Amino acid sequence: MAASVTAALLIIGDEILSGRTKDKNIGYIAEYLTGMGVELREVRVVPDDEAEIVAALNALRARYTYLFTTGGIGPTHDDITADCVAKAFGVSIDVDPRAVAMMRQRYQPEDLNEARLRMARIPAGADLIENIISKAPGFRIGNVFVMAGVPAIMQSMLDSIAPSLSTGTPVIAEAIEAEGIPEGIYAQGLGEIAAARPTVSIGSYPSFSATGFRNQIVVRGKDPGAVADAVAAVHDLLRRLKSDGAPL
Amino acid sequence: MAASVTAALLIIGDEILSGRTKDKNIGYIAEYLTGMGVELREVRVVPDDEAEIVAALNALRARYTYLFTTGGIGPTHDDITADCVAKAFGVSIDVDPRAVAMMRQRYQPEDLNEARLRMARIPAGADLIENIISKAPGFRIGNVFVMAGVPAIMQSMLDSIAPSLSTGTPVIAEAIEAEGIPEGIYAQGLGEIAAARPTVSIGSYPSFSATGFRNQIVVRGKDPGAVADAVAAVHDLLRRLKSDGAPL
Repeated sequence: MAASVTAALLIIGDEILSGRTKDKNIGYIAEYLTGMGVELREVRVVPDDEAEIVAALNALRARYTYLFTTGGIGPTHDDITADCVAKAFGVSIDVDPRAVAMMRQRYQPEDLNEARLRMARIPAGADLIENIISKAPGFRIGNVFVMAGVPAIMQSMLDSIAPSLSTGTPVIAEAIEAEGIPEGIYAQGLGEIAAARPTVSIGSYPSFSATGFRNQIVVRGKDPGAVADAVAAVHDLLRRLKSDGAPL
Repeated sequence: MAASVTAALLIIGDEILSGRTKDKNIGYIAEYLTGMGVELREVRVVPDDEAEIVAALNALRARYTYLFTTGGIGPTHDDITADCVAKAFGVSIDVDPRAVAMMRQRYQPEDLNEARLRMARIPAGADLIENIISKAPGFRIGNVFVMAGVPAIMQSMLDSIAPSLSTGTPVIAEAIEAEGIPEGIYAQGLGEIAAARPTVSIGSYPSFSATGFRNQIVVRGKDPGAVADAVAAVHDLLRRLKSDGAPL
């Protein structure tokens, strides 16, 4: 088996759980990590509650190569992510001169009030993650990367984190259109193909819209030969079902 | 304190974690539950892996009034949600004649092959949730509601579940535009308002687009009087900051 680098994502914020803000970060980060060979294995969304955040941080950072968080690093009283990370790691937290220096690129000294300096509070031992948009930095401590929740800022932070990540062998994914054959017709054959090929994973994804149902079969794996073999077997199956004149 | 009815949401599927499919269910369910007075307290996304699904089911159903799941109830080999739920509850699972009867509305007897009958496998003791779109039902067992992942089907299932749910006192949410005042300017005053009013929760939500930053302050609570009092205090704060000519 090729090396695996795994990750979890922790989304922090009451506004996602109330439905007031629709999350745009999960899909973006999932696609980004997958593309670079990091397997996103779990996502959690938790409220702005210290006990919940600390528990999720500790559960997830212990299980995966990396943990990414979004949200809760602004200047207001409900922004408690940095303090929760310090608590989870058992380290102190204070205003960090490096973070203040970054924020001085945007704020005059007289505008760096107590609330804004909250955004410069960084757990001891963390490295900063640059925020090219609004300057208040994210940070990395151990295997945890703390990012902003605003999508554009998060995306720029992810770009600056990416070069420092270990990556595994990227997963190759190939999608096959079922071309009108229903899942219920190809399911048994597909299951047999999957059972015989433990090094690839095969998924079947129905979707539908005004123009009707559409099924796609996706083969994923790290070994190009094994993926190609499974894709060929799926094409064979679909061809056989069509020429059988199976009831579609 | 008014009664709380809480919920968690478990999204099941490799395709969400790979970024191939962008989740559309979290935001919809969050807004739906909030609107009816059920507090969504946690969301998890897990892969199509039995051990992961069973562990998440058992962790979440024990902590919240209700657990909703989406995904993994189709006819293919990667659809293992029903079996995982049976395992989590320690009950048997078999083809359910009531589910077969529902599916007969769509399929002729000769089309109900082994794969399609997989969709009629229901854990012992569960009640069925009607699927008006593609007929294969979801189900409820204990406090767990198992729904399809395809958004339109999930939404119709949620509509049929809703009347059976206990609901708490709905949370009232009122949004206040900060009208150009930056978070860093109102953060301290807002924190004081929040600290003095433990029965409401106050959040500050920055967002930005091509037209620039926008901050909204949202007051949430179950007691209309307490919400109105906090909203008035926030308006006072913003007025004071404006007439102070604070550096914006």
